[in-house]
Amino acid sequence: MADKQFQSLPGFRDFTPRDCAVRNYLFSVWRDVAHRYGFSEYEAPIVESTDLYLKKSGGELTTQLFRFEDQGGRDITLRPELTASLARIVGANQRDFPKPLKWFEIGPCFRYEKPQKGRGREFIQFNADILGEGSASADAELIAMAIDTMLSLGFREGDFVIRASDRESWLFFCETHQISDPAAFLPIIDRLEKLKPEAVDAQLEPFGVTRKQVDAFINDPENASPAFREIQNNLEARGLGKYLELDLTIVRGLAYYTGAVFEIFDTHKSMRAVAGGGRYDGLLSTLSNGSADLPATGFAMGDMVIRNFIEETPNALLEMEAWMARNPACDVYVVIADESKRNEALGIIAKLRTAGISVDFGMSQLNVGKQFKKAQQSGARFALVIGAEYPEMQLKILSSRTEATIHPNTDIVEAIQDHLNSPDGPLIA
Amino acid sequence: MADKQFQSLPGFRDFTPRDCAVRNYLFSVWRDVAHRYGFSEYEAPIVESTDLYLKKSGGELTTQLFRFEDQGGRDITLRPELTASLARIVGANQRDFPKPLKWFEIGPCFRYEKPQKGRGREFIQFNADILGEGSASADAELIAMAIDTMLSLGFREGDFVIRASDRESWLFFCETHQISDPAAFLPIIDRLEKLKPEAVDAQLEPFGVTRKQVDAFINDPENASPAFREIQNNLEARGLGKYLELDLTIVRGLAYYTGAVFEIFDTHKSMRAVAGGGRYDGLLSTLSNGSADLPATGFAMGDMVIRNFIEETPNALLEMEAWMARNPACDVYVVIADESKRNEALGIIAKLRTAGISVDFGMSQLNVGKQFKKAQQSGARFALVIGAEYPEMQLKILSSRTEATIHPNTDIVEAIQDHLNSPDGPLIA
Repeated sequence: MADKQFQSLPGFRDFTPRDCAVRNYLFSVWRDVAHRYGFSEYEAPIVESTDLYLKKSGGELTTQLFRFEDQGGRDITLRPELTASLARIVGANQRDFPKPLKWFEIGPCFRYEKPQKGRGREFIQFNADILGEGSASADAELIAMAIDTMLSLGFREGDFVIRASDRESWLFFCETHQISDPAAFLPIIDRLEKLKPEAVDAQLEPFGVTRKQVDAFINDPENASPAFREIQNNLEARGLGKYLELDLTIVRGLAYYTGAVFEIFDTHKSMRAVAGGGRYDGLLSTLSNGSADLPATGFAMGDMVIRNFIEETPNALLEMEAWMARNPACDVYVVIADESKRNEALGIIAKLRTAGISVDFGMSQLNVGKQFKKAQQSGARFALVIGAEYPEMQLKILSSRTEATIHPNTDIVEAIQDHLNSPDGPLIA
Repeated sequence: MADKQFQSLPGFRDFTPRDCAVRNYLFSVWRDVAHRYGFSEYEAPIVESTDLYLKKSGGELTTQLFRFEDQGGRDITLRPELTASLARIVGANQRDFPKPLKWFEIGPCFRYEKPQKGRGREFIQFNADILGEGSASADAELIAMAIDTMLSLGFREGDFVIRASDRESWLFFCETHQISDPAAFLPIIDRLEKLKPEAVDAQLEPFGVTRKQVDAFINDPENASPAFREIQNNLEARGLGKYLELDLTIVRGLAYYTGAVFEIFDTHKSMRAVAGGGRYDGLLSTLSNGSADLPATGFAMGDMVIRNFIEETPNALLEMEAWMARNPACDVYVVIADESKRNEALGIIAKLRTAGISVDFGMSQLNVGKQFKKAQQSGARFALVIGAEYPEMQLKILSSRTEATIHPNTDIVEAIQDHLNSPDGPLIA
């Protein structure tokens, strides 16, 4: 009984401090990379009118919605993704913003699906989009940011690769093979690696092409589109060309993609995509009945798969742990060795905190040994001991168990800041 | 038609970049203060089993829930507040964490109420709690953090005050006046300022006390509880005593508060509380059927009222605008004055970004004048002009319209970092 009531709903996660720190590390890297690329952050509501999603996807997504009626009788949905809201917001405000827009968002999304490794009912998505720029240079800018996201997370060449394609290549294929309904044909390409060979043959047959023709098309690099080549050249100029691979099997499942499409692949487990995106030039127009018609390209990365990938990749794990070590719960733990000096200690604590130093202490009376134990648990680098000899104090470096006396005439804030800024520096005299 | 479909649902907000920057400013101050006080961040799911809230509040809240049935037939609710989740999570994991816990959370909450100024159906709450410490020193630590939150937001003495009380004072009043059901009596005190005098008299009558007796009790500072006095002394020792006022009319609406309670008041508009909190020692036990019985004290601040208060208070507004000026969308805008040098420009852009500098540029060919216009719009401090004379470049300071030549042998990253770190420093030769 007690156990069940302490559980979150299936597929929903509790971020206790350690998990929340991992989440904050992802947020920090995502925001930093987006900022370096000149993207501005926005945030959409978590709940939207269901219409917005029905209009956009029409496919698989709509069976996975957290959809309900609110107290006012509205048909509303917890957002399953962020692009529909982006299109709505830009549609409403587009005249206020010079084009192109480079916008990003980080926030929770909700899908009712079977919870499993790397997949939950509530997950966090990092979404970056460039609106109002139709050339392949926008796709290149976005893919460069995706690559830099991976590098900033500590992944290296050989850990991941961007597999990119262009729906234009397949539209050309459809044209040369008289396939009149590419929208029906593309999903077969999307599922090529998931289907059995016989199933592929059976599905291709009505279109009058064979698996052999499709394979030959995929394996010939000459079928790269002009946009793909432009992206490739652009990334070469940035020194990022080595992370890009042409892969014509990448077409992305959703119907609204119109041009270049790409996925970031974990090269250690070849079938796992950790992020993906592409060009969706028609979507904004569809969602706005033509009143906001901007070309667009975007990419999204979820927090669950990337976290697993980080934890399986030594370089990336090291990078994350280093970030955590630089961001402990507190810097200084104040040990009150003489309870009659508690008010003086409170004054010092207030002074340090006002100077921006993170300080914790025992709120009720405890013996000194227990206070030191709590100092260790807190992750603090220093223990500042305030006792009978106050205003003289002792500063202990918890990792090395060395200590120094803080003389009454020392500026305590300055002394501690010096230590924080040079962790291995000499002790103050 | 187009208009309506571009709107968010009533009571839900779109955070376009300017609004999102305001939100991020609040997040930044909240996180910074919580960190200085040694609080660790956690995050609960946005959706919880409805039971959790029915069990906790039983009152007003339950008519305002975004409550629905999921595809698996579960009765689920978008969280209306954060404390119930906190109690659930700590109940599940309490053995993993040394006590006391100092935890905070920042995230969206949902209530179906009439949207109005300072009140939406989706709002963001900053919640900080201390669990496992029953003494008034924990209440003092929490109130000190609340005060420092206000000071860090740029509010000053005279802009706000903490009005605090203690339910123990009223339990003492009930005892001396033979009021056997304090839980029925306290809500009258909570509504004293909202009710008409005749209504107060009528409501007090069944309890055998008069408005005069109640007023006399409220106006006598001798009725401050021992816990209130301890909080007062503790805050004095921190130099924060001047922000605290005894106000026995503060009892807080919710039934689960057990001890010290407080609200932060805007002193310019006397009736507006911008945050509040208090001690709720019994709640964790109630929610866990007694298996996790920790004393607790917590406080919450919503983003909507505090934003209004900031925008109405010159000091606080200035502080926010200074933060925004320090956090522009980008630092450097690269102007490509000669399209044949685009690849070289991409190389420089990649180099600057890798060094942590935020860079934007025109993705498609534009004349130089238009690129400078975009540089201005971007908020960048510098325009780096790359043209025919590359590898010589020009660096323009956009605010002063002064410029300097970057010679081919200059380290471009270092040169720009020097400028970023000393905005008014001399130009490089």
